[in-house]
Amino acid sequence: MTTEASISCTSTILTPAGNSEVEEQLAIETPYTISLNEIEIGASMVLPVGLEEFGVGFLFGQGYLSDPKEVKEVIVCPEGKISVYADVDEDVAPKDVIITSGCGGTGKIPRDMLEGKIDAPLETSLSFADISVFIRTVLHRSTLGPMTHCVHGCGIWSEGKVAAFYEDVGRHNAVDKIMGAILLGKASPRGAVYTTGRLTSDMVLKCARMRIPIVMSRTAPSTLGLAIAQRAGITLAAYARPERLNVFCNPNRISN
Amino acid sequence: MTTEASISCTSTILTPAGNSEVEEQLAIETPYTISLNEIEIGASMVLPVGLEEFGVGFLFGQGYLSDPKEVKEVIVCPEGKISVYADVDEDVAPKDVIITSGCGGTGKIPRDMLEGKIDAPLETSLSFADISVFIRTVLHRSTLGPMTHCVHGCGIWSEGKVAAFYEDVGRHNAVDKIMGAILLGKASPRGAVYTTGRLTSDMVLKCARMRIPIVMSRTAPSTLGLAIAQRAGITLAAYARPERLNVFCNPNRISN
Repeated sequence: MTTEASISCTSTILTPAGNSEVEEQLAIETPYTISLNEIEIGASMVLPVGLEEFGVGFLFGQGYLSDPKEVKEVIVCPEGKISVYADVDEDVAPKDVIITSGCGGTGKIPRDMLEGKIDAPLETSLSFADISVFIRTVLHRSTLGPMTHCVHGCGIWSEGKVAAFYEDVGRHNAVDKIMGAILLGKASPRGAVYTTGRLTSDMVLKCARMRIPIVMSRTAPSTLGLAIAQRAGITLAAYARPERLNVFCNPNRISN
Repeated sequence: MTTEASISCTSTILTPAGNSEVEEQLAIETPYTISLNEIEIGASMVLPVGLEEFGVGFLFGQGYLSDPKEVKEVIVCPEGKISVYADVDEDVAPKDVIITSGCGGTGKIPRDMLEGKIDAPLETSLSFADISVFIRTVLHRSTLGPMTHCVHGCGIWSEGKVAAFYEDVGRHNAVDKIMGAILLGKASPRGAVYTTGRLTSDMVLKCARMRIPIVMSRTAPSTLGLAIAQRAGITLAAYARPERLNVFCNPNRISN
């Protein structure tokens, strides 16, 4: 079986007792170049699904885009190019960038974003009934995850439903796709993000810059991920399960 | 408890039935700038352990270093700078880079490395007795992994033992530290790498450029990770366990 995002492949299981063959599904990792108003900004490895959202979210992560009103058009060329056209000044490249620690893709963040002022998040509250539906829906939609063991998923809950969900070989790319979906008007940022990946600095920073009030992960934050959440006033929840959250700051947005 | 690589932190466990407090250990993620012969090459988020190895391995990953004989001195400044001095031409910056998909740090690879010629790997063979000791030793040494759930580990087996092992918030950084250990003469590349992280393109490419013959992961490869292993003639093994390997190419180096 081959899907738009995975390829079937034979592998050999070796054990001391003997060998056997098995079919495996591999997640597709392929390079895409992202341009803004015909100027090439960068190239990234990506799972080739949700590429319009990825292109816009990538440019948001790098500091080129910040508002849905800026984005005019996105054209994806399957040979490996995402062209974003936006009403912004594309020659303001970040000068001093830090390469990110995390699994995922955008790869670098401008240092001034890490240290600069962050606007307060939008306000919302989330009940355990919502959290349960959110996490179960995301895990149910994640077909590629259990099939390839090589992708992370990321979803956003807003206006009482899972408004968007994406997978990618990079946990950062999956977050970028959510940011792109918001900038393309497909989801509201007034809600909660859930990721299967770890919450390192760049993961949390992107959510903070988008003013998303609640950020949840199936697993752990790093020290810098937590520090950014504290500075931004975000609710940061780790080890998120349908009936259990491990909240590191601002638990007040979670209700019973 | 606070270690050189983790910080203790109180978090609140929320459930529909009520709240409680718990102590958690968070992995430290902090930015370090890497310079080569006093010229700043980049900055990366990193777990502050094995920083000499990381600085050297980072420069290897970016294409600035390739041979142990080149490295002259490494000075780590705890305020956030790794200064590498080497007998190389530091102004040959890669022109056309691709941001990597993966969890970890080096963040970008020159496009010509992805497409260019790769030298054949060194030759070795590995028995299941070795594999069992290798994987059990690495998992036993990974203290930060089970404590923080926020790091990946990477080890190299050569000359009949685990010659080096590192952890990092980024799976790529942990591989970079192994590459640095090899370039600093602490381990031979004629052996096998085991990582707890996924084998995306940059993970495999670094091992291929170092001519490491066997690359194993606790989890899965991506399509491009496998393609590079095939092109380089590397043995690529996924879902590696003490008595079971799922080998995608070149199984001949594994013996019973």
